[in-house]
Amino acid sequence: MTGKAPIIVLVRPQLGENIGKAARAMLNFGLTEMRLVSPRDGWPNPSAGPAAAGADEVLETAQVFETLADAVADCAHVYATTVRKRGMTKPVVTPEQAAREMHTLPGRSTLVFGPERSGLETEDVALARTILTVPVNPDFGSLNLAQAVILCAYEWSKAAGLALPEGDETLPPAPQAELEGLIGHCEALLAPKNYFWPESRAEANRRTLRNVLTRPGWNHLEIRTLRGVLSFLEKEPRKRD
Amino acid sequence: MTGKAPIIVLVRPQLGENIGKAARAMLNFGLTEMRLVSPRDGWPNPSAGPAAAGADEVLETAQVFETLADAVADCAHVYATTVRKRGMTKPVVTPEQAAREMHTLPGRSTLVFGPERSGLETEDVALARTILTVPVNPDFGSLNLAQAVILCAYEWSKAAGLALPEGDETLPPAPQAELEGLIGHCEALLAPKNYFWPESRAEANRRTLRNVLTRPGWNHLEIRTLRGVLSFLEKEPRKRD
Repeated sequence: MTGKAPIIVLVRPQLGENIGKAARAMLNFGLTEMRLVSPRDGWPNPSAGPAAAGADEVLETAQVFETLADAVADCAHVYATTVRKRGMTKPVVTPEQAAREMHTLPGRSTLVFGPERSGLETEDVALARTILTVPVNPDFGSLNLAQAVILCAYEWSKAAGLALPEGDETLPPAPQAELEGLIGHCEALLAPKNYFWPESRAEANRRTLRNVLTRPGWNHLEIRTLRGVLSFLEKEPRKRD
Repeated sequence: MTGKAPIIVLVRPQLGENIGKAARAMLNFGLTEMRLVSPRDGWPNPSAGPAAAGADEVLETAQVFETLADAVADCAHVYATTVRKRGMTKPVVTPEQAAREMHTLPGRSTLVFGPERSGLETEDVALARTILTVPVNPDFGSLNLAQAVILCAYEWSKAAGLALPEGDETLPPAPQAELEGLIGHCEALLAPKNYFWPESRAEANRRTLRNVLTRPGWNHLEIRTLRGVLSFLEKEPRKRD
């Protein structure tokens, strides 16, 4: 997940806490490279660490620059994140589109985020070739810095093909013979109760029962559980010793 | 973007601030319906409003329930969000997959989130047919509540542009309350047979039974069929006249 991973640039961030939260958001999705442009309260900032919740490696390797131009000097693809239209003739992409591009384009990419309160200045945006906008609710757009970062990092990670952790090996449906065993068992319990009576309804009732028991696609263990249930229902109560 | 919008359920949330942040996350992506299960500090909570940053409508219409079962009683598709493996044979989906399903499946959907510190209990997860896991960095998974909510809401909002045409006439899963009726009926039949004995195994047996009966996603008609089956099993044989 390295190589093409974008650099996250925070321009004039105000609160150390938000820098920490952004680091945490990044590392959740495998991004580790942070750059800070003129952080308001200097750097390092003692409020950042606690908010990073363990993402210390991101903070420890963060680099500080005086200007955005310096911070993105080695990057081939600069995306300026903003919600406002600026009357600029730049392409506007979503986090998903940006993520796809970053994985396919050659050269380093960087996502640039503005200060918490005001966002990027027009002159900052001017440095970017592309504008990245998160498509929020038009009646309520209120993403904070770390949220904007996490959505972009998440999309990058998705595009990286980051799969769910291994091991959630859902069992396949049991062989049909086991299902037949269950259905037969169930029918054997119901027949003496005259469930399949009158004769004219018997076939339809059997089919309904079969359909209900077939659709789940129960696996071997589940079928075994249900066979156990049926055994209990047909027997005398289990002896307590 | 209404209609199929999922309900966000927060189970035993600890801090009002986090409830507010979750509301803000929701409204950014057009979700408005929040339900709270036994919030630790009661409800309303004065810390929620400021953290919602203007998403007041979500908080004002939030409903409070005593149990998760009550909160999801009218929902056809219950997704339990969790990062941990639980040895359960439930399908695990990503936020993106869940979002697509929620847009195409008939019936209400709900996304269930656990308490900030501990996440959902095993018995909470047992109520759900599907597990939702955000595929985070395997070496650093540290999503907070509002972050998990915003990623799910974001994916739902994205998928809102992709709704598939209507016309699939499959009945939706029955409301959760009907499923609870079936499980309760089954347990009532098994208890006198000492199925839930010895005591040390009772809870695990109940959970296994619940999981097996929850996974199929039976619809109203199927549940009715199975209730009929159970009624036959508990009664004397039907009289033939």
